[in-house]
Amino acid sequence: MTEQMMTAAFYRGNRSFSVEQIKKPVPAAGEVCIRIAYCGICGTDMHVFHGNMDGRVGFERVIGHEMSGTIDSIGADVPDFQPGQRVVVRPLDHCGDCPACNAGHEHICHNLKFLGLDTNGAMQEYWCVPAHTVHRLPDEIRMDYAALIEPVAVACHDVRLSRLKAGEDVVVIGGGPIGVLVAMVARDAGGKVVISEVNPHRLEIAAKLGFDTINPMETDLAEAVISRTASKGADVVFEVSGTQAGADAMTAIASTRGRIVMVAIHASKPQVDMFQFFWRELELIGVRVYEKEDYEKAISIIVNGGVDADTIITDVSALQDIQSAFDNLDSSPTALKSVIKVGE
Amino acid sequence: MTEQMMTAAFYRGNRSFSVEQIKKPVPAAGEVCIRIAYCGICGTDMHVFHGNMDGRVGFERVIGHEMSGTIDSIGADVPDFQPGQRVVVRPLDHCGDCPACNAGHEHICHNLKFLGLDTNGAMQEYWCVPAHTVHRLPDEIRMDYAALIEPVAVACHDVRLSRLKAGEDVVVIGGGPIGVLVAMVARDAGGKVVISEVNPHRLEIAAKLGFDTINPMETDLAEAVISRTASKGADVVFEVSGTQAGADAMTAIASTRGRIVMVAIHASKPQVDMFQFFWRELELIGVRVYEKEDYEKAISIIVNGGVDADTIITDVSALQDIQSAFDNLDSSPTALKSVIKVGE
Repeated sequence: MTEQMMTAAFYRGNRSFSVEQIKKPVPAAGEVCIRIAYCGICGTDMHVFHGNMDGRVGFERVIGHEMSGTIDSIGADVPDFQPGQRVVVRPLDHCGDCPACNAGHEHICHNLKFLGLDTNGAMQEYWCVPAHTVHRLPDEIRMDYAALIEPVAVACHDVRLSRLKAGEDVVVIGGGPIGVLVAMVARDAGGKVVISEVNPHRLEIAAKLGFDTINPMETDLAEAVISRTASKGADVVFEVSGTQAGADAMTAIASTRGRIVMVAIHASKPQVDMFQFFWRELELIGVRVYEKEDYEKAISIIVNGGVDADTIITDVSALQDIQSAFDNLDSSPTALKSVIKVGE
Repeated sequence: MTEQMMTAAFYRGNRSFSVEQIKKPVPAAGEVCIRIAYCGICGTDMHVFHGNMDGRVGFERVIGHEMSGTIDSIGADVPDFQPGQRVVVRPLDHCGDCPACNAGHEHICHNLKFLGLDTNGAMQEYWCVPAHTVHRLPDEIRMDYAALIEPVAVACHDVRLSRLKAGEDVVVIGGGPIGVLVAMVARDAGGKVVISEVNPHRLEIAAKLGFDTINPMETDLAEAVISRTASKGADVVFEVSGTQAGADAMTAIASTRGRIVMVAIHASKPQVDMFQFFWRELELIGVRVYEKEDYEKAISIIVNGGVDADTIITDVSALQDIQSAFDNLDSSPTALKSVIKVGE
């Protein structure tokens, strides 16, 4: 039997990918080998592309984790799956023996391996992953839409940890790809959602998705939120901007006992109005990635149309064209989510 | 019938009190008139003394709210109380018609009147207050100890909102009067408590109260906490210092999903490590004053000896000597809680 070959895209540093033929992998014990259908380009993948994570990923790495696919083969000791099943991967591999794992928070394991960054990912035709990371998909889901499950699961995690109740006032600060997904999941949960965003293109997309929007460069955000909510303020605030302005706004617009969810990655330490936390008994909730139940919720939201996948996916490219897909995403002011079509 | 007179201490500005004879008040409808036994000096009272709150309290104000006393008389429409009952006052009068009150958070009412600051307080022989602010005391409680119920209720509120469970690791950053009370209530709830404090006198008191202590000027606090907790970090952190160093430490020592309780009043906006909130899914919980159940809990803790009142109360002065009591508290490095003996 001759060895099977397949196509894989390697990040080679300096904003470049090389698309190569390599041996098709064989699943080890406990692993599942997935034939990849689609793989979305995450903001983190853009950070890799920009060279910001070279130390972590190196130059022999296949990246990609926002994927959908079909099981091709299974290794030994994988009782729960069979070839032909349509699946997505929750790309988190935990150590099982750190304080976070011991406390049941495997998704933020102290030694977490993120598949597609710390290991090879889904920008290749076949991908072997630990079986515990695999979620089955219902038959009716579209495979291109299914590539949104990973980022939607982020939003589901954020909204779940916010303890949002139907009818509550929500402000999402920052209307980029994650911001609009958070907004959609919050709306799906019954929240009355406003998106604050400064970029006109993103404001346009947010409006197209049916959201009320505020441009804080033009309108006083705090005044607008206080006015809309009869002086109450927002019950839940998602800070997705990662800016000092966002950190300032989050405490100014939150209601008494309001919950502020820290979705953004603040690379520098913003000044925060701790007096307001005391005065209004505000709560700040840090959130990172997702847990199993967030994946199941994300699958059901995609199936039920709670996320407008057609509007979110602004580009689909072939794996051969991964270089131009990354180049274009970098330069396009209107792109939201680019998806690579890896196979069928 | 001749009018009865009584003694009252007025804050007159410029770090001075005048002790005067005024008419004994008569309770209005819905009010209770209390003969004050003891009244503690709060940190807020010291702020008044220092002239920092002149705009709010003026120069005709009887301050004081950490009190105990006995009901002297009741106004009309006060069915639940009778003269002779021993009581304390929860000194919060809410408006009943703001977003906080509407949401059931009357204790942080947007138009909250704090009795003894926004109205006259307990540094006088008789004090009339709304009946809804009054809590009855059990017979066995000592009235000087009962003057600690208000600050202990602050600590009970803070610990309750931290969701502390028995056996969890707790660090209190800042070992002043509120810090040690928080530490005692956290210990009473089963927490394994360490106090971080830089002042040697306060470190001595904390040790006398049986707490493990760390001086972060001498020992790396984060290293010490990580080491004591087998790399886990503190499950609950109370930030009571109000300093940038405290804000830095709180995120450095918290465990994965650790809860940081913001007890301190940060007058300026500290820089906060928001990345760590994301990375470890930390939670920040703003806390202010107390609710009814915190008062009931504080009463039971004082009765059960969960707070070492003898060590906490470092001075008792007569109402006539209120001036020297405030002067001394200002200059004493070892004083923790000074109590004014107003009557019997």
